[in-house]
Amino acid sequence: MSSTAITDIATLVTNDPSLGQGSPLGLIQDAAVVIEDDRVVWTGESSKAPATDNRVDAGGRTVLPGFVDSHSHLVFAGDRTAEFNARMSGRPYHAGGIRTTVAATRAASDGELEANLTRYLSEALRQGTTTFETKSGYGLTVADEARALRIAAAHTDEVTYLGAHIVSPDYADDPAGYVALVTGEMLDACAPYARWIDVFCEKGAFDGDQARAILTAGKAKGLHPRVHANQLSHGPGVQLAVELDAASADHCTHLTAADIDALASGRTVATLLPGAEFSTRAQWPDARRLLDAGVTVALSTDCNPGSSFTSSVAFCIALAVRDMGMTPDEAVWSATAGGAAALRRTDIGRLAPGAYADLTLLDAPSHVHLAYRPGVPLVTGVWRRGTRIL
Amino acid sequence: MSSTAITDIATLVTNDPSLGQGSPLGLIQDAAVVIEDDRVVWTGESSKAPATDNRVDAGGRTVLPGFVDSHSHLVFAGDRTAEFNARMSGRPYHAGGIRTTVAATRAASDGELEANLTRYLSEALRQGTTTFETKSGYGLTVADEARALRIAAAHTDEVTYLGAHIVSPDYADDPAGYVALVTGEMLDACAPYARWIDVFCEKGAFDGDQARAILTAGKAKGLHPRVHANQLSHGPGVQLAVELDAASADHCTHLTAADIDALASGRTVATLLPGAEFSTRAQWPDARRLLDAGVTVALSTDCNPGSSFTSSVAFCIALAVRDMGMTPDEAVWSATAGGAAALRRTDIGRLAPGAYADLTLLDAPSHVHLAYRPGVPLVTGVWRRGTRIL
Ligand SMILES: [Zn+2]
Ligand SMILES: [Zn+2]
Repeated sequence: MSSTAITDIATLVTNDPSLGQGSPLGLIQDAAVVIEDDRVVWTGESSKAPATDNRVDAGGRTVLPGFVDSHSHLVFAGDRTAEFNARMSGRPYHAGGIRTTVAATRAASDGELEANLTRYLSEALRQGTTTFETKSGYGLTVADEARALRIAAAHTDEVTYLGAHIVSPDYADDPAGYVALVTGEMLDACAPYARWIDVFCEKGAFDGDQARAILTAGKAKGLHPRVHANQLSHGPGVQLAVELDAASADHCTHLTAADIDALASGRTVATLLPGAEFSTRAQWPDARRLLDAGVTVALSTDCNPGSSFTSSVAFCIALAVRDMGMTPDEAVWSATAGGAAALRRTDIGRLAPGAYADLTLLDAPSHVHLAYRPGVPLVTGVWRRGTRIL
Repeated sequence: MSSTAITDIATLVTNDPSLGQGSPLGLIQDAAVVIEDDRVVWTGESSKAPATDNRVDAGGRTVLPGFVDSHSHLVFAGDRTAEFNARMSGRPYHAGGIRTTVAATRAASDGELEANLTRYLSEALRQGTTTFETKSGYGLTVADEARALRIAAAHTDEVTYLGAHIVSPDYADDPAGYVALVTGEMLDACAPYARWIDVFCEKGAFDGDQARAILTAGKAKGLHPRVHANQLSHGPGVQLAVELDAASADHCTHLTAADIDALASGRTVATLLPGAEFSTRAQWPDARRLLDAGVTVALSTDCNPGSSFTSSVAFCIALAVRDMGMTPDEAVWSATAGGAAALRRTDIGRLAPGAYADLTLLDAPSHVHLAYRPGVPLVTGVWRRGTRIL
């Protein structure tokens, strides 16, 4: 066993509410955190830190839990630069949308997909993201979906089966047949690799009845639900998510009062994905309204090559503060403890004895700088499971 | 003399219009650029690159001219985290605004100011900014303004005297007396260190007549004008800037048709600073309207601890594309060649034989990724005056 103390931390974000002076961030000033192997074993005032084998001087900077990015789509090939460029330049573009990425992903070798995945995971890790959820959804055949999940499962525990991303182009005239595949043979092939099942519940994708059938079938196979809900329009996704005790309803851009009441009454986290609204010039989700109703809010990147090609959780925090009514404290909580809640985890997203030693060191005196200094790469240190990787 | 070829560049942005297929970016695909000492000596197809002493393989990534950040305020002490946090959290805060920074800056030692400046210059350089303009304006006494400019001049050629940032609190009851100081003793003390003179022409700062007196006095001492104009409201700043042939009118958020006509008819560049609108939740400047009228547009950070504490030009590009109607190509041009135009420089902001070898290497196949991948630190290589610093 080897122990390390990180000392002289100007601001330590623990997310331990027992420490907070009214803040769920559980802030400690002039702090230290002690790591033993892969776990946090002590937090407190720097001057009271116990003796350890190693010592790292944080030099008056900020330490917070590693970001928990609970929503990304990183098993893909190709990119959609031309489509993005045309959309942002006001030029017509007959885009295939998700279908473009499906075609490129099917055509890629396993090695290409894995190299792409690890490239983006590494990029995210260097930006302070120590836990990644990622999904299938660009294969849409039994073999391609199972392959995506197998590749993802080699790199993260948080793997989501999203065969129900869109109706496969191969089933354009038979959506019921595709739902049967997703809930049958494809589910059987995918379940061994995944923890979660997800569905894009939206006009043009899957309606409420289809989504219910898909999520219910997944539950019967031991996969727990999460839902792409109410992104582009009002719909049944959010209330269905709460009804099925989904871990998270993701996007939540178009909500009725009944949707908010449902979220406030259940355990389902509302995961907001401001990178998608940024990159598609869409309406912002109203985080303030959710928070004021008592809903638990997570912030994630939705990193994918079509609608949100950012891996920067810090960027999402800055947007959430500027455009979604979150305070800097709330946004930082949502990107760490909130993401953990959206994955039903208590061993990450906080720095308290017993939690994993997943830490991010910011070149800034406080966590507020994540919103105060938008776009600036402030992350200068990252530990994952007690090992320093940056 | 030592020569280096950077080869296998997927997309080379030269800003050389003679090369463009209709784009002012002068794009070359599968390109190389050759550096000799501090200058670019050759650009072209990678397969045709001449023999050189050294070779760097760009591996299918993008090279563009280093960003030219023509507007920042980096000689300051203290920060304004509490003010930012209160503003973004909807809490009342009796902020001193610029006065808070003036007090902290006056109280700081020369060494503290220089350490702070070099910290932010280094942060910007690592993000691909190879030319920085910076201003005084947090001293507001003869000695403190001259000190700020002396410190700035040790680190950049692009130094701007901004004694007329606000009326000094010491002259709260005698603004005319402060204008006399700014145009007299303070100007004499500052002129040796500065290339430019600037004034904040705005309600609550300096009106059109005061601004004209200040800029005219500066011109008589050999300083060339630039103007903080039309940021918070309509006003005389933009038309005054054009009348005095200022290199740049900066902010340009509130413009009349007459303001746009004036800019289109003169040589004055419109420098847009989206970090300020982002961090103060203000109305976006309408870049599209300016570009359609034929105005030259620059993009810069306005990096300062009050209203725009970002040093990321890439972030400003992403905002300009999302919210100001610029295409990705236009935004990249404005952040490189546009910034050079705002400093009346032709030796930077482009990669063509004879220009300084100031280059940025992006971990992306094209410059469009600066907008397509917002918040992601894509800069993986920086050369300044031919020397690789990242
Ligand atoms: Zn998604
Ligand atoms: Zn300014």
